[in-house]
Amino acid sequence: MAKKSNAPVDGRTNTGGKAVTRGKATAKKIETLASDVIEVAGARKDPALDIPIRALSNVSYDARRRILKMGDSTQTRNFFNLGQAKKFMQTMLIASSAKDLIDEGKTASIRGLYYKAKHSIAGTNEKTFVDQDESDPIIEDLEVALNSLREELHVFAKEKGKMVGNLTIEDNGDTIDLRRMGTGGYAIPSIVEPDVIQFKKCEAKFVLHVEKGTVWSRFNEDRFWEKHNCILTEGGGQPPRGVRRLLYRLHNELKLPIYCLLDNDPWGYYIYSVIKQGSINLAYESQRMAIPDAKYLGLRSMDYERCGLTDDVKIDINDGDISRAKQIAKYDWFKDKKEWQKEIERLLKNGFKMEVESLISKSISYVTEEYVPERLKKRDWLD
Amino acid sequence: MAKKSNAPVDGRTNTGGKAVTRGKATAKKIETLASDVIEVAGARKDPALDIPIRALSNVSYDARRRILKMGDSTQTRNFFNLGQAKKFMQTMLIASSAKDLIDEGKTASIRGLYYKAKHSIAGTNEKTFVDQDESDPIIEDLEVALNSLREELHVFAKEKGKMVGNLTIEDNGDTIDLRRMGTGGYAIPSIVEPDVIQFKKCEAKFVLHVEKGTVWSRFNEDRFWEKHNCILTEGGGQPPRGVRRLLYRLHNELKLPIYCLLDNDPWGYYIYSVIKQGSINLAYESQRMAIPDAKYLGLRSMDYERCGLTDDVKIDINDGDISRAKQIAKYDWFKDKKEWQKEIERLLKNGFKMEVESLISKSISYVTEEYVPERLKKRDWLD
Repeated sequence: MAKKSNAPVDGRTNTGGKAVTRGKATAKKIETLASDVIEVAGARKDPALDIPIRALSNVSYDARRRILKMGDSTQTRNFFNLGQAKKFMQTMLIASSAKDLIDEGKTASIRGLYYKAKHSIAGTNEKTFVDQDESDPIIEDLEVALNSLREELHVFAKEKGKMVGNLTIEDNGDTIDLRRMGTGGYAIPSIVEPDVIQFKKCEAKFVLHVEKGTVWSRFNEDRFWEKHNCILTEGGGQPPRGVRRLLYRLHNELKLPIYCLLDNDPWGYYIYSVIKQGSINLAYESQRMAIPDAKYLGLRSMDYERCGLTDDVKIDINDGDISRAKQIAKYDWFKDKKEWQKEIERLLKNGFKMEVESLISKSISYVTEEYVPERLKKRDWLD
Repeated sequence: MAKKSNAPVDGRTNTGGKAVTRGKATAKKIETLASDVIEVAGARKDPALDIPIRALSNVSYDARRRILKMGDSTQTRNFFNLGQAKKFMQTMLIASSAKDLIDEGKTASIRGLYYKAKHSIAGTNEKTFVDQDESDPIIEDLEVALNSLREELHVFAKEKGKMVGNLTIEDNGDTIDLRRMGTGGYAIPSIVEPDVIQFKKCEAKFVLHVEKGTVWSRFNEDRFWEKHNCILTEGGGQPPRGVRRLLYRLHNELKLPIYCLLDNDPWGYYIYSVIKQGSINLAYESQRMAIPDAKYLGLRSMDYERCGLTDDVKIDINDGDISRAKQIAKYDWFKDKKEWQKEIERLLKNGFKMEVESLISKSISYVTEEYVPERLKKRDWLD
């Protein structure tokens, strides 16, 4: 039950209020988990939890669905096992804290959840969690164990990213016209589930996702989204869950193609890879976040010559870049794609990487007026 | 002249269009700078620039205005001086690039400006700038030399920070109701000058500025700004120029008090210090950004006992924290303030620091329902 003091002021529910629906099924799962443990303990047996393994060994590429997915391997976490008892206890505490959040209709950051679940174990100086490095993996364990995403546990990570474009949304009951967001834009929250954010009127025909806020500002200033009838998003580098989930929803619910404008470096490739297929660490999210049809619009290794750039744009690649690029070339979803192999080989042959921002060396708005429009017109992208 | 292709689509000027007015006076200053140099060179003399010195030695605390300010010391940058010729050339290039931006009615990031001004010096392999570490200080030099802020040079830094609350703004011609921004909020842009952003209807009685996005989300979710009739901002840690300038304008134009909710650690103190008095590195900005009347609402070192917290919230302070705290205690604007001396002494005596997020250990909404309302009611803050 939400506390009385949290009652909405003007009749609208607060975020938490809306989120109660989302959390209900999850709360039920937590209750079941807890009563199973109590039952086993009552029978004087050893309570145990099965936690799906979140390691590379249990992740595979589903070639049909074209996303990363988690396998069936699990590890059992026993209470009566010296090596597992602490993690067992921690899992229970995180589950209990998430249940509190759901019951109160509120959300907390992963750091907040750490503080919430931390305390001294009665009669000892031992803490349930020493630092957040201990609680974060337990949150992920619980997500997979319950098959409930973090958002359903009412927990969020750091939010970043912005959006404008030819779309109206409703966010927690507020109608927001993304065509009239000025120079600032709408800040994309961490939890963008359908009970919080709904899509309303949309004329946009595609989404242009750019890597960084500074590039986004160039496109917004030039009103690219208006001229080209699209939605413009950015994810502050590697996009956080909220941005990925939002792109997923825009793609699947509004049927909008997603084009990614990223730097010509292994990090840009990796960002694309995560948007497209999911991340290895969090493969269990892929089915709700990965967008196998997302396109890589550039920058491309060939652009140095194709666009007639000067060596002012060159940034030397280092050993880290080289090994990262080779690793990415071997990803299941890139290894059979000739164009991607050529792209990565060319990067290595070039010996340099390039940032989207360097296109300003052609002219201030070259990227918004020539580079991107030309790629779109020629349907010239990597898949 | 703005290029034809940048003409607004729907009759509204783009950001750049609006910004032309702002930039005009600056463009004039750059022209004067350039013609002075040409004139001197034409007379076969040594062109020189006077650049105000941006070091601590030339910064002082103005006790009457209660802000940091820059002194009158300058250094001369001569063209016919082997040690100064490169910087002279770089200053001219940055000035010329800024002039281009102003003329086109566009803005660029400091990284963009680096790429724009970078090229090979004719007949050599020498670059005008090797990396951005070389161009950033030149931008600052130019700001002080011209007495034009970065925003007037059409240059922006990374933007971060969000806002919601009982205020309507106009941003580049778009009316934005900050009471209806859902869970996401309005993303604060880097350039918030009056020609871009105007304040419209405002019922808010104060601004609550919090350190981080995760804390901001707690306050927004609990609709604190609605219950307490205020504006809620966050700056992603040390607030960027856009957020500081916006707070300054909210304070000075709308006469709203600014209350800062920051972590109980030297970093929190420092953030407050910059909001209040300005930063030593960029003292020349203080007159347009510093808010000497801003209040420090908490967390306080006494809160551990006053709020009955447990040692779960303690984070050990390290040597860096200790020397930083001692340094801050000696700042001109803190050194004679008994309450601030007590605050910092207590932190050192405690031997630990505390984050706002740790208040969740009391209860999920303790910070929004008890901690902040109580401080405000009792007018209990540090000045």
